[in-house]
Amino acid sequence: MTLANPVIAVIGAGAVGGYYGARLAQHGHNVHLLTRADCNQIRRNGMTIQSHDGDFSLTPDQISAYDDPRQMPKADLVLVTLKTTANQHLHDLIAPVLKPDSIILTLQNGLGNEELLADLFGRDRILGGMAFVCINRPNPGEILHTDHGVIRLGEPFNITSDRAKKISDLFNASQVTCEVLDNLTVGRWDKLIWNVPFNGLGAALDLTTDQILSNPHGLILARRLMQEVIETAKPLGVQFNLTIIEAKIRHTQTMGAYKTSMQIDRRMGRPMEIEAILGNPLKLAREKSIATPYMEMLYNILRLVDVAK
Amino acid sequence: MTLANPVIAVIGAGAVGGYYGARLAQHGHNVHLLTRADCNQIRRNGMTIQSHDGDFSLTPDQISAYDDPRQMPKADLVLVTLKTTANQHLHDLIAPVLKPDSIILTLQNGLGNEELLADLFGRDRILGGMAFVCINRPNPGEILHTDHGVIRLGEPFNITSDRAKKISDLFNASQVTCEVLDNLTVGRWDKLIWNVPFNGLGAALDLTTDQILSNPHGLILARRLMQEVIETAKPLGVQFNLTIIEAKIRHTQTMGAYKTSMQIDRRMGRPMEIEAILGNPLKLAREKSIATPYMEMLYNILRLVDVAK
Repeated sequence: MTLANPVIAVIGAGAVGGYYGARLAQHGHNVHLLTRADCNQIRRNGMTIQSHDGDFSLTPDQISAYDDPRQMPKADLVLVTLKTTANQHLHDLIAPVLKPDSIILTLQNGLGNEELLADLFGRDRILGGMAFVCINRPNPGEILHTDHGVIRLGEPFNITSDRAKKISDLFNASQVTCEVLDNLTVGRWDKLIWNVPFNGLGAALDLTTDQILSNPHGLILARRLMQEVIETAKPLGVQFNLTIIEAKIRHTQTMGAYKTSMQIDRRMGRPMEIEAILGNPLKLAREKSIATPYMEMLYNILRLVDVAK
Repeated sequence: MTLANPVIAVIGAGAVGGYYGARLAQHGHNVHLLTRADCNQIRRNGMTIQSHDGDFSLTPDQISAYDDPRQMPKADLVLVTLKTTANQHLHDLIAPVLKPDSIILTLQNGLGNEELLADLFGRDRILGGMAFVCINRPNPGEILHTDHGVIRLGEPFNITSDRAKKISDLFNASQVTCEVLDNLTVGRWDKLIWNVPFNGLGAALDLTTDQILSNPHGLILARRLMQEVIETAKPLGVQFNLTIIEAKIRHTQTMGAYKTSMQIDRRMGRPMEIEAILGNPLKLAREKSIATPYMEMLYNILRLVDVAK
């Protein structure tokens, strides 16, 4: 990867990918967004970003948009922010922008994305990360970034390299706080401990986090699901102290009437990221014969109510 | 019990109790309804019944209505059709109408009603039954009986007596098909095998029976819940062949877009009969250390979304 002046492609540039791509472009980087929905608008009028880290806008000559990856330049760094429900298209969307030494960083939700990308494009080039950000896209070319924004990234396959640090520097120099994780797997599971109960129950029952946690039976469900996620992580060598459960509950109680992305997806009639957040962890549990009946039932409930069924 | 000319009290006379009470009154019996919501209307204008077994109406001198049990006469036969969510009032509603030899027949839903009545009034006088009937009450004093109607009743505590047969005769002579069950417990659990998945999932997810059964994940959930109910019944000496699961699924598939009473209760913002249908079976499972994670999770979900929380 040429870090001096990298060509950066963002694959599936919705709110999250659009925002990070826009920040990099704002700071002079050569950024190319693949976005079917926003392509025409961005080509004509650029982008407008309202952000709690400072508003800005980009003209069409500061950022490029595409609806076809075959028209994009080869990229040094490929950021993947495609919704996981479209993962079956990853090969066709990414292959056209790859060079032999392109790095692919997936910031997608849930589990299994690095493994899928490794199968498609070779594990040596894959990095994984998590975006902790409250963001949405009110209109094409417009981004509303309301809170947080940190990216935590790392090597999913324990390759020794300074590339995670270099990408992190790139973000930090572009007003995006970015941290390198020693152990990405721990980070992913830490996020799953939260995502499984709150995305899962929130979407299944159309409840905000405070509606779940203000009810004793909601607390039983959240705790039990967290326990099962923690059990599932153990055979991977990922150990969590059970005190993490109450810590996450206390933290979530400070968040108020928070709607998870999956609850919003369900309300909007959009497909939910069920496989990434529940299906893939469950496959691991099944392989290791770990009892996860609450996760299983929640998975089946979500697949039952999913619009994509 | 004097069966020649019994005084009959119906405690909690909504749609079900109102209908059966009205049929008995239509055939000349001395029937007294305890119904707060419909009392004034019935006293003024009597009742109107549209029924697939024949429409009829009753004048105020053919049937009596009360909103206070202390104003009712002592009854030979007490039919209990109170919603189980009001079971904490059973003592105060029934005690005023009891004589030493009054028989109490509960037609309430789910598990635990006979035991509760036995604790309150002595087990020797308690009978239990199930009403298989599609019925609602569009307006006070009006009943719409759309399908079925059979009552199956029996001795919950294996007392040897001809009283079940006598009550059954009373109903059958009043245009209500009634059967005496050799084993009421088997009948109750047979009904629970259906009620737990379809009332439970239907209410939790606002789905009709055909929405559940037309989805492979809905089928997984329904089958698993039925299995757990069957396992829970075993230590009580109630054995079901597992083929009952597919038989019930096939039968339910003939019912079309059926809304269970619990789904309707949730939609109407009324309390749901969660304890009778799920909570009480779960207590038995816990006593016998039977693993029922799907029932447990469903119970907690229903308690989480219940309006009565």
